[in-house]
Formats: sequence, C-alpha cells, structure tokens
Amino acid sequence: MAKQKKAPRPKAQTPKGFRDYFGAEVTQRTEMLQAIAGVYHHYGFEALESAGVETVEALGKFLPDVDRPNEGVFAWQEFDEKNNGDWLALRYDLTAPLARVYAQHRNDLPIPYRRYAMGPVWRNEKPGPGRYRQFYQCDADTVGSASMAADAEICAMLSDTLEAVGIARGDYLVRVNNRKVLNGVLEAMGLAEGDGARDNVLRTIDKFDKVGEAGVRQLLTKGRLDASGAYIDGVGLSDEQAEPVIAFLTSKAADAAGTLANLRAAVGDSKVGAEGIAELEQIGELLAAGGYGPDRIEIDPSVVRGLGYYTGPVYEAELTFEILDDKGRKRQFGSVAGGGRYDDLVKRFTGQEVPATGVSIGVDRLLAALREKGRITAEVSGPVVVTVMDKTRMADYQAMVAELRNAGIRAEVYLGNPKNFGNQLKYADKRNSPIAVIEGGDEKDKGVVQIKDLILGAKIAENATLEEWKARPSQFEVPRDQLVARVREILDGQG
Amino acid sequence: MAKQKKAPRPKAQTPKGFRDYFGAEVTQRTEMLQAIAGVYHHYGFEALESAGVETVEALGKFLPDVDRPNEGVFAWQEFDEKNNGDWLALRYDLTAPLARVYAQHRNDLPIPYRRYAMGPVWRNEKPGPGRYRQFYQCDADTVGSASMAADAEICAMLSDTLEAVGIARGDYLVRVNNRKVLNGVLEAMGLAEGDGARDNVLRTIDKFDKVGEAGVRQLLTKGRLDASGAYIDGVGLSDEQAEPVIAFLTSKAADAAGTLANLRAAVGDSKVGAEGIAELEQIGELLAAGGYGPDRIEIDPSVVRGLGYYTGPVYEAELTFEILDDKGRKRQFGSVAGGGRYDDLVKRFTGQEVPATGVSIGVDRLLAALREKGRITAEVSGPVVVTVMDKTRMADYQAMVAELRNAGIRAEVYLGNPKNFGNQLKYADKRNSPIAVIEGGDEKDKGVVQIKDLILGAKIAENATLEEWKARPSQFEVPRDQLVARVREILDGQG
Repeated sequence: MAKQKKAPRPKAQTPKGFRDYFGAEVTQRTEMLQAIAGVYHHYGFEALESAGVETVEALGKFLPDVDRPNEGVFAWQEFDEKNNGDWLALRYDLTAPLARVYAQHRNDLPIPYRRYAMGPVWRNEKPGPGRYRQFYQCDADTVGSASMAADAEICAMLSDTLEAVGIARGDYLVRVNNRKVLNGVLEAMGLAEGDGARDNVLRTIDKFDKVGEAGVRQLLTKGRLDASGAYIDGVGLSDEQAEPVIAFLTSKAADAAGTLANLRAAVGDSKVGAEGIAELEQIGELLAAGGYGPDRIEIDPSVVRGLGYYTGPVYEAELTFEILDDKGRKRQFGSVAGGGRYDDLVKRFTGQEVPATGVSIGVDRLLAALREKGRITAEVSGPVVVTVMDKTRMADYQAMVAELRNAGIRAEVYLGNPKNFGNQLKYADKRNSPIAVIEGGDEKDKGVVQIKDLILGAKIAENATLEEWKARPSQFEVPRDQLVARVREILDGQG
Repeated sequence: MAKQKKAPRPKAQTPKGFRDYFGAEVTQRTEMLQAIAGVYHHYGFEALESAGVETVEALGKFLPDVDRPNEGVFAWQEFDEKNNGDWLALRYDLTAPLARVYAQHRNDLPIPYRRYAMGPVWRNEKPGPGRYRQFYQCDADTVGSASMAADAEICAMLSDTLEAVGIARGDYLVRVNNRKVLNGVLEAMGLAEGDGARDNVLRTIDKFDKVGEAGVRQLLTKGRLDASGAYIDGVGLSDEQAEPVIAFLTSKAADAAGTLANLRAAVGDSKVGAEGIAELEQIGELLAAGGYGPDRIEIDPSVVRGLGYYTGPVYEAELTFEILDDKGRKRQFGSVAGGGRYDDLVKRFTGQEVPATGVSIGVDRLLAALREKGRITAEVSGPVVVTVMDKTRMADYQAMVAELRNAGIRAEVYLGNPKNFGNQLKYADKRNSPIAVIEGGDEKDKGVVQIKDLILGAKIAENATLEEWKARPSQFEVPRDQLVARVREILDGQG
C-alpha cells in the first residue's frame, strides 16, 4: 500500500513585519495608554473606537487598482457573486476614520467634537529593523473649531500628557509653527502656488536639520557636494531670492516676541504670512494665560512637518535629553508626537470644509524613551510559586494558593509535571518569582512549610561570603498558618 | 468648454457589519478589560498581545481557495512579483494565534505557559442585528499542563473575575462538565467513534435546552413534530439505546456526589467515561480546597459546548438572573463565558501533542448584563463648560479652564462660533455638562462670574413650583477667585 502523503506542517511564524508582545511590554503600554486617555478625558475629549476595517472608498488616498490593490494599505475585496463587492482595508491611521465618523454621525455629535482614539493601525510597507506593519497610535483631535484656542489647547494637553506619563518638565519641549508663515515666505520670494520651484524649496527646507544654514543656502542656489561626494543640484534661485527662506529658518530668537519680529521680516508684505504670524501670536497668548511658558511650549520656525497635509498651526513634541545610539554616540531622543491643523478631510464626504486640529502620540517611541531614562523597567516581579512535592496532595497546594490570592498576593501553583523538583525551581526563575513555597511530607507532618526567598537567594549566590550565607539563610521554615503573613513580610522587604 | 466631471463623493459609512463605539461605550469596556486583566494577572497569567494579522497557514482551518479565499475570515494575498505571496488573514479568535505563539517561542517561554490576551477578532460572516464582524474577546489559557488543577484554576478564576466586574455571587454560576463522560455514554450505547449515528446523537443532545427530556427522547428514537408542525426525523435508536443519553442529560442531582453517581450509572463500564468522571471529581476536590463551593461552581452534565473541539473538561459561566427580552418576556440572561480543554492545537505546528485549557469571556455580553442590572449606566457626566461671551477675551476663559483642570476638575472652553449664546448652552446640554461658567463684560468689571448648575436647572425645569424656582436659583454669581471652590462644591453636591 502506498504511504499516504501528509500535508506539510504549517510554519509557526508571524507574518513578515509583525511581532508578538509579551508580559510587561503589553501591560506597560496599556498603562501608558490609560494615563494618556486620563489627560485627554480631563480636557473634555471623548473616547471613540472605530473598527480596524474601513471601506477603501472612505479611507481615500489609496484607491484599489487592478494590478496592485493594496499599495500602502492591506486591502481586499468583499465576496459578491458578481465580483462587485466593496473594497475593504485596514485603517492606516486614526485621522481618516475620524473624518468618516464625523461625516457619518455629525447630526448626533456635539460640535465642536473633541475626541480621542487609541489603537493599532496597519501599513503595508516593507518592514525594516524596528519598523513594524502594525503599531499603536494615540490621537486627540478637535473637529469643527477654527479657533486658535483649539490648537493652543492641544499643545497644552500634549505638555500635560508627557508629564503624566513620566517625562519631567525640562526633558521635553512642545514646538509650534504655522504653515501659513512658510507660505508667506514663499509668496515673498515670488513663488506662487503651483510653481514647480516651490516644491523644490519645500523639500530643501525639510533638509535644514541635516545640512544646516549653509547647506540649505547652497541647495537653494547652485547645489552642493554631499558627504558621499555626490553633487546635489541646486534649486537655482539667486542669493537674494534664497534670503527669505534662510531668514525664516533662522528666525528663532531668545523669546517669542523676538521670533515673531524676525518672522514678520521674513514674510515681507505677504497677507497669508501675516495671518500665520497673528495665529502664532494668539496661540502664544492663550498658552501664557493657561500658565504654559516657553519652558514647556515655544514657537519654533524650524518645525515643518507634513508639508502637504497641514493648513495652519503645526506642532511637535520633542524629548530634549540625550541618549546613546547603536554606535555609542550621543544624540537627542527626538520627536515623540506631532500634529497640526488640517481643514479638508471631512470635505471629501460632505462637500463642506470643516476645520480640525489634532495630535498623534507615538506610544512605542515614548515607551522606549521612558525605558532609556530608567523610568520604567522591563523586568517585573512574577508570582509567588507554590511547588508540588506530592502530586496526590494538589488540593493542599491549591488551598495555599487560594489563601495567598485572597490576601491580595499574586500566586500560582506549579502545573507542570512535578517529578523533577529542579524543573520547578527553574520554572520559578523563568517566571521571575520572588518566593517559592515548599511543603513535602515531612513539613506536612510537622505542620510547617518552607519559604524560599528567591531574590535574596540570587543575591547570596552572586556575592555572599560563607559567613553571610550561614547568617542569612534564604530558605526557612514557618508554621503553616503563618504562610500568608511571612510571605507578605518578605515581599514588603524585597520592595 | 465642457464641464469637468467631478469624482463622486465617498460614502461616509462603516463597512457592513462594523460599527463605531462612543464615549462611555469605550471607557466602560476598557475598565472592564482592565478589571479582568487584574484578576488574570493575580492568578499568575502573563499578558500576550499578538498582531491582528496572521498567515492563513498559521491560522489553519480556513485555507485559501481560488474561488473564495476568505470563507469565514478576512484574507488577502501579499503582493509579490510572481503572484506567489503569502496569504494573510485577520485572526478570528485568540486561541489559534496562541497555538502559533507557543510553537514559535516555546524555547523561551516558561512552561506551563499561563497567558491572557484581549483584543478584537474578526469574522467574515453575514452580519445580523447585534452581530458584528469585529468584536472583543478576552481569553486566559494554560498551555503545557495536563493537570486538572489547570482546569480547576480557570473555573475559580472565572468566578473571581465575574465578581470583580460587578456580578454578585448568586447572580452567576460556573458549570463544569467533561467531554469524556459524554464519549463514555456513547460508548455505553455501542456507538463507536466514526459511527454516523454518533454525530446525530451529539446534535440531538445540543437541543436538550430547547426541547427538554421528552423531546430528546423522541428525537433519538422515532422523531417528533416541532412547534411549526413540521415532522423532524428521529435518529432511529431503540428506547433502550436512548436511555444512557437521557440518564446522562438528567443526571444532575442535589449535590456533586449524587451527580457523579448518576453519571457513573450512565457510562456503564466505559473506560473513557470513568476517566471523565474521575477528572470531574478531581476538579471538584480542588475547587472545594480553594473554597469554591456549589454556590459558585457546580458540575452540570447539560453543558455540552463546542462538541468537536474540546477533549476533556468543558466549562461555562452563566448569569442566572432574569431579564426582559425584546417582547417583554422574562428569560435568563444566559452564558457570558466558556471554555475547556483542547489538546491538539499546538500539534499542528510541532507534531507533539501539547495539553491546553482555557476560557474566553464575551466582554460585550457581560457589559450588556451589567447595564441590564443597572450596575453601570450609559449616561456619564460631561465636563464643566466655560462659555465664551466675548471672543476677544479667549485668554481669560482659557485661564479659567486651566485653573479648573489644575484643580482636578474636568473642564473645557467652548470652541465653536460664540456668536449665539443659546448654541453654547445647547452644546453644554449635548455634552451632559454639570455646570456652565459665564463671564460677560459686566461680570468682568465686577470681578465675578456666573455659575449655572445645569443638573439642578434641568430638575427645576421639570418639576419645580414657582416658589421653589425662586428659592433655589440654579444660576448665581460668585467672586472670580472663588470659581474653583464653588464649582467643586456644586459637583460634590450633584455626586
């Protein structure tokens, strides 16, 4: 008889670009999300949770295409006899769903609508080191208000949020700019909207952080040699034409009044530029009234995020402390949140322009920052482990565990094969257990249990002299009825 | 010139079978998940969060098919030049990903591995009223332990969890059964594994809740007329053959010992049946040792969930209080959680059988139950709203809001167009605001603000006589520097 061919076993692997999160990775993120939600809620924002799946039509931007329907997003077509089903996709951010929700429910929502949302989003991109295709976002937006008070409020809230999750004042800065000021600068240069040179100028401005003032000046005019020796063509402006851009990028002064004066010079008599400066001034006043000084929030013209997307104020939260990079070099931790004003997302659905402004916090980056600063540790204490010396007495061990749990102590009984006691201690070690409880036949007869302080044991094993070892045994016997009291004593001592 | 045709506007709609959750719907679910996670963690379970996306290969069960790749799941193929990319899918539960995680990381995990997971899962099913294609699951499983202590622990934990989220003792019951007992019954009937009649018997057992003892007896033998008058064919057993099934289904006695004795009679000399009864006995002893009596957890042979899936103990949590259904009839609320032992999920990947047992809580049903019982209310108080009487004085209003927030009071400034004051009060109403704060030019000059108690105002508007109205005004003037103190006083009073 021919041997039947078995189906090959499936591979036990996450899809490329996805990962699993374990234990403290999950609970610390959850705690951070809850802390952030607490501040958002305190500011009057309401929770919103939409599904991970939207119609491609509602998401916009990425439209299905016969050859490659899922460019940038994960998309698929609903089954339908006539092959005519809707295209669905996983959301790639929380803003596009907000626009859909607002358009769909606008008759029932309070307007202006302040909402926060947190959850995973998906990007169909090539994964890279530390770059995943599913990650968390944590957003707050105000839809339906054109007031600068909405933008100022979000900046203040961002500052409060960072402090609430454990970033100390002085370790961060919320930096505010305005897209209209930049548009004013371009106008002052004689570059109208639609002028091809304009895009080139914007792209060059984006490189300011990397190449500095002199580099930008070269790139705006004749071009420059980059670090690799390649020649980068310039935009071809004259030195005079390039001047307003340089003035704009270097306009940050010792205080807000000085910065605003420099910006006024940079935009010349551009109307939109003046409007942008007036908006920045207003935001500054509102923040000052709320007690948010330049130690927390400042005007900084070098913030130029999301060039195409934002229409007014833009803001960014940066962590200002230094960390060591992979190669041991010091660098600033950098941006952990950003946002700004966008006015035409809802218009796609309703035809009416609806002003909106909002912020998105990069939760995973913020967690990484707190780990860097030692504010949270990845190692977390595990449960007390009650070992099993005699598997026919499982009920006794279960009773101990129940007592410990009822006393508020995290505890568990060993559930593996109890034959090899060494394996039970190895298990306790892998669980980061602070204490193991042991009750064999002898102990049972004497009415006692053994308590093994695993933290102290580990310390002694590492450092102690023989005398210390003898003087401070890490394992001792206690009467059975003192189990809970003594375990608590040790846990408190381990603090 | 021909008019340019505009692209039609996208529809602002969730895809069919998906919905949005607002405000308290979101925060109450989050709180419940946190309460559940707290109990799971206390029992020594560790958090695990896997991605929403898995390879179809790893999920198993649903394999891609050229005609309809996404039967039951949402699935799509990864892009690849040769059209050879992996098939990916949204997870349909949290157990299949657990099996994949365990197989992938088994060398690094503590074994037995106790883990909990909570999050959305997706089903590509026809949506119906109250049936969505994305919903939450909240699972705890122990992988790698064959001990009945693992099953007993999960039943105890389920009981603690229900009490932790607000279901009082007496309002729920965790019912335990064992698939092996049922297999023993079938063996006693002379129906071997693979016998076609066996499946028919199983399907009939599942109808016990609906048709009762007499109905099951009819269905096992000659058949019966159902309520609509249609004749349902019977399985064709003789009355004697049907007896063990009836004995099994009606074996519940006044106490566990009685039930077990009845079950022993039902399984006759079936070895697997005896094994199942011994397991039930063991679970009962372990639970008793932990203090979990039949007021919380009981053996109940009528629990027959997931006939194909489970291999040993099965358990279910039922809410025992009555609610009124759509038509005003009383009925029991029913099941909110269930689970059991399953032993071959990991084997698919590794070839080795790995024993596992676990539970899944239906979070949305549990929330619905708490709302039914009035333990949580959908209406939640909104923020204090500071109104805008003079939009040039926004900084003053912002300062008030900052003061309130710094004092721990949830507050916001009105961010809409302030022209029409009535709209501001309507907004406050829609926000469920307890208090509105008003400061016009007169108040500003006098150094006072108006505080409007919106809760009292609504009560007065409903009930009060003219005298009461005069005696207890819902709006009054307070000195500006007493704003925070007076607002707090009113909020405490509204409590």
